[in-house]
Amino acid sequence: MIEKYGIESAGKLHTARSRNDQVVLDLRLYLRDQNLKLVLQNIKLVEGLITQAQKFKDCLVPGFTHHQHAMVTTFGHILLAFATMLARDNQRLLHWFNLHNFNPLGSVVGYGTSFPIDQKFTSQLLGFDRVEINSLDVITNRWEAEADLAFAISVLMNHLSILAETLILFSMPEFKMLKLADQFSTGSSIMPQKKNPDPLEVIKGKAGLAAGLVQGLLSIGKGSFIGYNRDSQWTKYLIFDLLDECLPAPGVMKEVIENLKVNKEQMRKWCQVGFIGATTLLEQLVLNFKIPFRKAKMVMEKAVKYSEGEEKVTSAALKKSLEEEEMAINLAQKQVDQWQEPDEIVKLNKSLGGPGPKLLHKNSNDLLLQIKKQQKWVEGKVTQKKKSIEFLNQQINEIMEA
Amino acid sequence: MIEKYGIESAGKLHTARSRNDQVVLDLRLYLRDQNLKLVLQNIKLVEGLITQAQKFKDCLVPGFTHHQHAMVTTFGHILLAFATMLARDNQRLLHWFNLHNFNPLGSVVGYGTSFPIDQKFTSQLLGFDRVEINSLDVITNRWEAEADLAFAISVLMNHLSILAETLILFSMPEFKMLKLADQFSTGSSIMPQKKNPDPLEVIKGKAGLAAGLVQGLLSIGKGSFIGYNRDSQWTKYLIFDLLDECLPAPGVMKEVIENLKVNKEQMRKWCQVGFIGATTLLEQLVLNFKIPFRKAKMVMEKAVKYSEGEEKVTSAALKKSLEEEEMAINLAQKQVDQWQEPDEIVKLNKSLGGPGPKLLHKNSNDLLLQIKKQQKWVEGKVTQKKKSIEFLNQQINEIMEA
Amino acid sequence: MIEKYGIESAGKLHTARSRNDQVVLDLRLYLRDQNLKLVLQNIKLVEGLITQAQKFKDCLVPGFTHHQHAMVTTFGHILLAFATMLARDNQRLLHWFNLHNFNPLGSVVGYGTSFPIDQKFTSQLLGFDRVEINSLDVITNRWEAEADLAFAISVLMNHLSILAETLILFSMPEFKMLKLADQFSTGSSIMPQKKNPDPLEVIKGKAGLAAGLVQGLLSIGKGSFIGYNRDSQWTKYLIFDLLDECLPAPGVMKEVIENLKVNKEQMRKWCQVGFIGATTLLEQLVLNFKIPFRKAKMVMEKAVKYSEGEEKVTSAALKKSLEEEEMAINLAQKQVDQWQEPDEIVKLNKSLGGPGPKLLHKNSNDLLLQIKKQQKWVEGKVTQKKKSIEFLNQQINEIMEA
Amino acid sequence: MIEKYGIESAGKLHTARSRNDQVVLDLRLYLRDQNLKLVLQNIKLVEGLITQAQKFKDCLVPGFTHHQHAMVTTFGHILLAFATMLARDNQRLLHWFNLHNFNPLGSVVGYGTSFPIDQKFTSQLLGFDRVEINSLDVITNRWEAEADLAFAISVLMNHLSILAETLILFSMPEFKMLKLADQFSTGSSIMPQKKNPDPLEVIKGKAGLAAGLVQGLLSIGKGSFIGYNRDSQWTKYLIFDLLDECLPAPGVMKEVIENLKVNKEQMRKWCQVGFIGATTLLEQLVLNFKIPFRKAKMVMEKAVKYSEGEEKVTSAALKKSLEEEEMAINLAQKQVDQWQEPDEIVKLNKSLGGPGPKLLHKNSNDLLLQIKKQQKWVEGKVTQKKKSIEFLNQQINEIMEA
Repeated sequence: MIEKYGIESAGKLHTARSRNDQVVLDLRLYLRDQNLKLVLQNIKLVEGLITQAQKFKDCLVPGFTHHQHAMVTTFGHILLAFATMLARDNQRLLHWFNLHNFNPLGSVVGYGTSFPIDQKFTSQLLGFDRVEINSLDVITNRWEAEADLAFAISVLMNHLSILAETLILFSMPEFKMLKLADQFSTGSSIMPQKKNPDPLEVIKGKAGLAAGLVQGLLSIGKGSFIGYNRDSQWTKYLIFDLLDECLPAPGVMKEVIENLKVNKEQMRKWCQVGFIGATTLLEQLVLNFKIPFRKAKMVMEKAVKYSEGEEKVTSAALKKSLEEEEMAINLAQKQVDQWQEPDEIVKLNKSLGGPGPKLLHKNSNDLLLQIKKQQKWVEGKVTQKKKSIEFLNQQINEIMEA
Repeated sequence: MIEKYGIESAGKLHTARSRNDQVVLDLRLYLRDQNLKLVLQNIKLVEGLITQAQKFKDCLVPGFTHHQHAMVTTFGHILLAFATMLARDNQRLLHWFNLHNFNPLGSVVGYGTSFPIDQKFTSQLLGFDRVEINSLDVITNRWEAEADLAFAISVLMNHLSILAETLILFSMPEFKMLKLADQFSTGSSIMPQKKNPDPLEVIKGKAGLAAGLVQGLLSIGKGSFIGYNRDSQWTKYLIFDLLDECLPAPGVMKEVIENLKVNKEQMRKWCQVGFIGATTLLEQLVLNFKIPFRKAKMVMEKAVKYSEGEEKVTSAALKKSLEEEEMAINLAQKQVDQWQEPDEIVKLNKSLGGPGPKLLHKNSNDLLLQIKKQQKWVEGKVTQKKKSIEFLNQQINEIMEA
Repeated sequence: MIEKYGIESAGKLHTARSRNDQVVLDLRLYLRDQNLKLVLQNIKLVEGLITQAQKFKDCLVPGFTHHQHAMVTTFGHILLAFATMLARDNQRLLHWFNLHNFNPLGSVVGYGTSFPIDQKFTSQLLGFDRVEINSLDVITNRWEAEADLAFAISVLMNHLSILAETLILFSMPEFKMLKLADQFSTGSSIMPQKKNPDPLEVIKGKAGLAAGLVQGLLSIGKGSFIGYNRDSQWTKYLIFDLLDECLPAPGVMKEVIENLKVNKEQMRKWCQVGFIGATTLLEQLVLNFKIPFRKAKMVMEKAVKYSEGEEKVTSAALKKSLEEEEMAINLAQKQVDQWQEPDEIVKLNKSLGGPGPKLLHKNSNDLLLQIKKQQKWVEGKVTQKKKSIEFLNQQINEIMEA
Repeated sequence: MIEKYGIESAGKLHTARSRNDQVVLDLRLYLRDQNLKLVLQNIKLVEGLITQAQKFKDCLVPGFTHHQHAMVTTFGHILLAFATMLARDNQRLLHWFNLHNFNPLGSVVGYGTSFPIDQKFTSQLLGFDRVEINSLDVITNRWEAEADLAFAISVLMNHLSILAETLILFSMPEFKMLKLADQFSTGSSIMPQKKNPDPLEVIKGKAGLAAGLVQGLLSIGKGSFIGYNRDSQWTKYLIFDLLDECLPAPGVMKEVIENLKVNKEQMRKWCQVGFIGATTLLEQLVLNFKIPFRKAKMVMEKAVKYSEGEEKVTSAALKKSLEEEEMAINLAQKQVDQWQEPDEIVKLNKSLGGPGPKLLHKNSNDLLLQIKKQQKWVEGKVTQKKKSIEFLNQQINEIMEA
């Protein structure tokens, strides 16, 4: 508001005046502020996820592909996956500054002015990195800074929607792995027993809304004739809606994550089901007995078949399978079991981005450093803004006194 | 292909193998290559636009807002507006590397592996900046690198569609300001006289297609359950389509721009029409006679009214209007005419991003430097790729000989 | 409101209660009302277009393809094209009733109830055609009736956006064929001369918004799990926005159309330009001299070339071209001119859907009949609604008195 | 092909020729054929769903809302919900004929022709309901018939994606309620135990793709200038892609549905969990003891709380709760249990669209009649097409012999 007030005393502060560049300016200031606010919220969510990831770094849980049990992982590994996505979302949000943190004042209606304005001075006053270098570009593309922000938010919302879907499923009575805290469950109008994961569903719904608004912005921008056309006025309303709907999402998710009730026993129980250890067993056969991968996979597929009715490969089944393939390998039952043991599987994991506890610890620390850097950058911007407001006020006072 | 061949000899090159991370890898390599190719094409277009902008920096043309004559500008200023947009599009395209130029190998199906793989080595081999830090993030988001590229292309196509629309209108018989070279005009199946701006229309159509594919990618990514789901296979086809359709666009546009036939006389003629000099006249009244802006605008609105039937404000009309507002200002007809003279208007322009010839010259040089930098960066990446292929081949040879 | 009040006294009116089917009900009633309102507005616009089409059925104007002069048509023909589109839009809107005018009450949360409700009675009360036949379908698809309406509106808005674009171009100073009435032109904050076609641009912008909201609705509906999920709550807000933004559009356009200032002389003048009569001349050569079409087109293409610098084919150029192709056809200059004469071209037009004045008259009358039918149907629905409210009130009174 | 051949002998068959109306014609014939093909496929799927719905009309299963157990329903009820949606999709698809089954020939480039063509004759030949009444409408909207079909398919795909998601979840190891037949499960490249529901995931992915293509079509159509513009050529490629990708979907889903392995015991077992009978118990309290709904719900909420650790409300808990609310109701344990008994719950269901076995039987029969009608209509269209091809050939022969 102060910023705006300052701008209104235009003539003396060496700006030119047209509705057009005033609106562009106000919008950039607004988008910039909202962007920083969103990034700060999101940083808090990432911190929350990292804290929980470290807390649950040993908490075994099935790793799914195709909604089926694939391999064993840890709940920490899953949480860290989301922290990683969301930190990347911040990068996308902050890149907006490289594209649009420039001073549009002086563009007037797109073709400049003969007034002797001082655009570098207003840039400094308003915390822009430089003056826009083409006035017509600025006015023609009154959808682009909006679309860039909208897209970055839409990707962020997509990530939150994946997290929401995952938490919703893990909380189903069939899974029983998670419970949302009561404050994030809503009752039913007629069913006395219901506890519904409403906030998570809302996030999913808003991800759909966000994508639609990206589309609206791209459609409005497409194929327009050079110069301002009022079509682009609606880009304002679309981005306002988007920000209103989506800005609270990371904060809500942070609360959900920090208050999750995790049923470790149930998670571990599901790790015993559906031959979830078969892949590691297969890998160890390859590694320890120098069997070609394809061959070993064939053996294991048979062994899974011969173990039907069980939830893991039995040593008898494996033995039968190895014999049929004429492979003289003798494996103690204990070894077969061990390589399928969830704890062992995770310990054996060598991938830098995998669930292995040491690597996970390192990765979560690295990620923490990364978002601390983001935070510092954002705080710098916020400080810069405060200073430019002070400077602006000082300028206004001098003018008023003169 | 060589890259792929190299990867296939996996075991020995210390990768792990799963369809999943192989596909992610292939796609990243492909997207990276196509991205660089597109940026290089786009750089050539920007160069073409800058060259033409400098050539036509004194070529007067109406500046439009709302499809109506607003102020006088130059054709050079218009062309430079597009050069500016497209240079920004390159920044958006290149930011993709900051988000996705990381090694996905070792993610396997999302949960790592117990194989002793060397991910840092494959990163180096394949020219990635580092290893991805979470395997599950990589596999879950098999839509995101695609969506990022698709969105950047969609914005680029939107800019090209605005340029296309502008050129199409300027070439209409009612405007007669431009003619497309014959090789970019197509005849009709029944109308013997037709010369149609088909390539420009195609670009507009493809901008619509691009936005739709962004949407498809966001929709596929939304609300999925953690881990790989085959839904995301279709993200490949969407981005392939997008690249096939849109990659040639900047090259086509470059040819169109370089071969434009510009009717300078007609452009200048349109600058005499529709009170196009009224705003500068108004500004000069404010500046030279210290009249408040609102007051001066009221005077000028009346003066425009009193000049009905003419194409510019007459000194008689202005006199009448000034007298009615009881303003004792005496203006020679010559002065009134001069401030409405197109050449004078452009010369008086003070905005840093405006059509003033000196500023335009400076801005086009700055822009040229910017894209030269982009070009250098891209060429660095291309060199890096060549070197990594050589290194890869060398490694393969060593292994084969061993 | 009365309807809602009635429904609240639920138990006695034999409904069951759940937030879910109440919301579905309220929304269907609302969408139904808004749909009918929109159709009625649109009917008025179609009537306005037909009236103007008949008024300008002899008003010659260039017919464009590829933004270039193609053939001669009439302004009436163009206006009738839009009337035809918009009448079809009404059909699409009214088809909504065949898909969704069914009673959702009794679906409760998707799985029915053991309460002895009377769904047929509430259907009758609320003017539904029948009870929904699957309660789970109703509750799962709380995006579909919204998406159907949104899509129908989006297509309508697209048609209005094409009309808007056409009027905007025809009003440019380069065309000078149309002027919007002053009440539909807006001034500028700095340019004293400006008259901008703002309402038409707003319609274009909203067409982009509408398409984006369709997308949001489809995205929210996609891939959800059976039964109610709160994601779908946001479908309400999307369709509310859409209706708020787009419902006024046909009314605004009707005013614009009825108050257009048409510059017939200028329109006719443009019909003399750009070899616009070449196609009819070609057709007459084929018809009158039994020349194969391809041959005749070749002759005409040459003739156009030989007439360069002119705006129509000269008889000398045609003669030269015919001789070169060794065709012994002798054509008087008068005949060559006549077949290129705009009035003559339109008179010769034989297509049932073309600009020929008699056919246009017949077509506009047929269209009028069609929308009168639509109007009657809609009025029937409105009457039915009034009656059901009366009946509802009567029932409430009886219950209250009892 | 025969149709096209016939059209090519144009002059004599009294058509006019332009690429434009030929392409529009070919496309309408193509879209019409593909539409009918899709509807026939979809009818088979609906039949398959109805057959299975009747087979599993007594098969108890939890009814979900918010992914939580809400009430008891039957698997038949769920399957019939999808049959109902898909029958409605057919209505939407067939409505296309009311909007677009008209003859575009004679529109030529949008402005008719002076050739003496016989459009009514070609309408008859080609099985169109009538001639298009405005040639310019036809050519300007070369995106609309495409968008209408695309949207109808997108809604259909959304329904299939919901069915897919539901089947995928029911097949998860945590649910164990369903198994896909082996031919619809795919293995993994590295995990020997995997059986993945790939075809269902593919359908979900394609639903995203379909929505994106709808968007592309709307975006291309938006804001174009009157008459043909080549932008619209890309609408062809978008709808071709859409049809290629989505046409097989109903056929695949039919196979999946007919070969589902249903684990009835497991489904029933899940019906004992999560206080799924609480709502019916609540309703029966209201009905049998005339307790106000709100009051009864309060009692039941307490009773659920007091039964913590159990999966259904105990009579002790209910008693305690009733006493606390000072309600003198005495309920035998047997009664409390019975009203929560899954079989009893379904039997008590009174909603016309609910899972009650008799109503379900009636509804499935009604639906069967409805799709039989659709089938008859489609077959009529197919016969009409055959006849018109015969007639066309006959006409061609007569001309050739003459």
